[in-house]
Amino acid sequence: MLSIVGLGPGPGYATEAALRAIREADCVFYEDYTGPLDLETLRRAAAREPVRLTRRDLEDESGRAVFDCLREGKKAVLVTAGDPALATSHHALVALAAARGYKVRVIPGVSIICAAFSVSCLSIYKLGGVATVTYPRGGVYSLRPYELAEHNLQRGMHTLLLLDVREDGSFMPLRDAAEVLLTLEERERRGVFTPDRQAVAVQRLGWGGSLLYTTLSRLKDTEAEGPAVLIIPAKLSPVERECLEAAAGTQL
Amino acid sequence: MLSIVGLGPGPGYATEAALRAIREADCVFYEDYTGPLDLETLRRAAAREPVRLTRRDLEDESGRAVFDCLREGKKAVLVTAGDPALATSHHALVALAAARGYKVRVIPGVSIICAAFSVSCLSIYKLGGVATVTYPRGGVYSLRPYELAEHNLQRGMHTLLLLDVREDGSFMPLRDAAEVLLTLEERERRGVFTPDRQAVAVQRLGWGGSLLYTTLSRLKDTEAEGPAVLIIPAKLSPVERECLEAAAGTQL
Repeated sequence: MLSIVGLGPGPGYATEAALRAIREADCVFYEDYTGPLDLETLRRAAAREPVRLTRRDLEDESGRAVFDCLREGKKAVLVTAGDPALATSHHALVALAAARGYKVRVIPGVSIICAAFSVSCLSIYKLGGVATVTYPRGGVYSLRPYELAEHNLQRGMHTLLLLDVREDGSFMPLRDAAEVLLTLEERERRGVFTPDRQAVAVQRLGWGGSLLYTTLSRLKDTEAEGPAVLIIPAKLSPVERECLEAAAGTQL
Repeated sequence: MLSIVGLGPGPGYATEAALRAIREADCVFYEDYTGPLDLETLRRAAAREPVRLTRRDLEDESGRAVFDCLREGKKAVLVTAGDPALATSHHALVALAAARGYKVRVIPGVSIICAAFSVSCLSIYKLGGVATVTYPRGGVYSLRPYELAEHNLQRGMHTLLLLDVREDGSFMPLRDAAEVLLTLEERERRGVFTPDRQAVAVQRLGWGGSLLYTTLSRLKDTEAEGPAVLIIPAKLSPVERECLEAAAGTQL
């Protein structure tokens, strides 16, 4: 059996089900390229030393090490940060394991997508979609965050923006994300990511980070390193505003 | 200090941070009207017998019992199912406590909204919004699920539907939700909730429930009781389809 297990956004967010699956596994694998993994909790729960898999191991080599374990009739677990199957990264592994006749289960973890809304008091009913802010590839910027936020602002919906991972595996800091968004505005000029656009930044949740509610131009000067996510809120309801203003600045 | 703590969708999904906050609290309150609470885990973690608060206690009386505890300089915790602050129910309490000068923290839990996407292998990047399927009030049906799903299907986005709570506090079963959606189609006739529309039902996650991938007309004949959520998927990518078909029918 293969279990795909999420440890949540940071220390303290592992669930009992996740810890049990790790403890009972014969082979413990993890990846830390889709999010910031709480390796200390993982090591404490695992009966043996966890084995790190790279994006190349899991994608280009289709998780060969995982299948080597499963073929011997053993229990394998793949541990990730956050929720393990929310992005599409591990769907191919689930499908492949099932096609090869192995039992697969996904153990959901606390996802930064839902948690970011929760800690900032924004209504999930107003979540209009999720996009990723990426560094330009070969000088080309992805317009998806711009187009999604534009569409959502017109409808009164909030936009959640995940931040890119750098080539070296580190996470895009907030100042770089703000700079990308402001650059998109300079090019598109439709009033979406203006310097005075308010944004909510959820930075290092579970790792002693903080919640910021400020403008894009101020975010460009933030020193804090990643991981973080951004929400571009549409018009706030009175209770959203009161609650968000109370939460802003608190440690996460 | 007031902590608002989520226990996740069902047994096994409590996080270490949630259990610690409950253990350390002087006054432990809970509510079970926004979701199915794992009372056994709560009782095991709490140092004293948890006190149940009704919607009336929290909304009409603004959480008076909670403030009675805080006023004595004690630590209060309010425990909910799922993620505690994702819906808007407890935002007013956070805002009120902060306005009265108390420190407040929200401890996010595993939310059914993110977990439903995760266990069914659907891409969160294609989440186009969240609505609730409600029983008619005074003969009037809410059109919000219909309009949101229509908008999302046109854009290739998935729609997440939460299900209503009955007057007696029980959760709307899937068959009733399917019936409401089919009734909306009979009235609107724009091809959104047709009998052969495919839906993903995540039923009793964490409580030995299951994942169904079937049509609305078949869901109308499902015996299973709630709690459940529905996803109306737009066109699936090949990997979403493969992974969802592998996951369908599994126990949750």
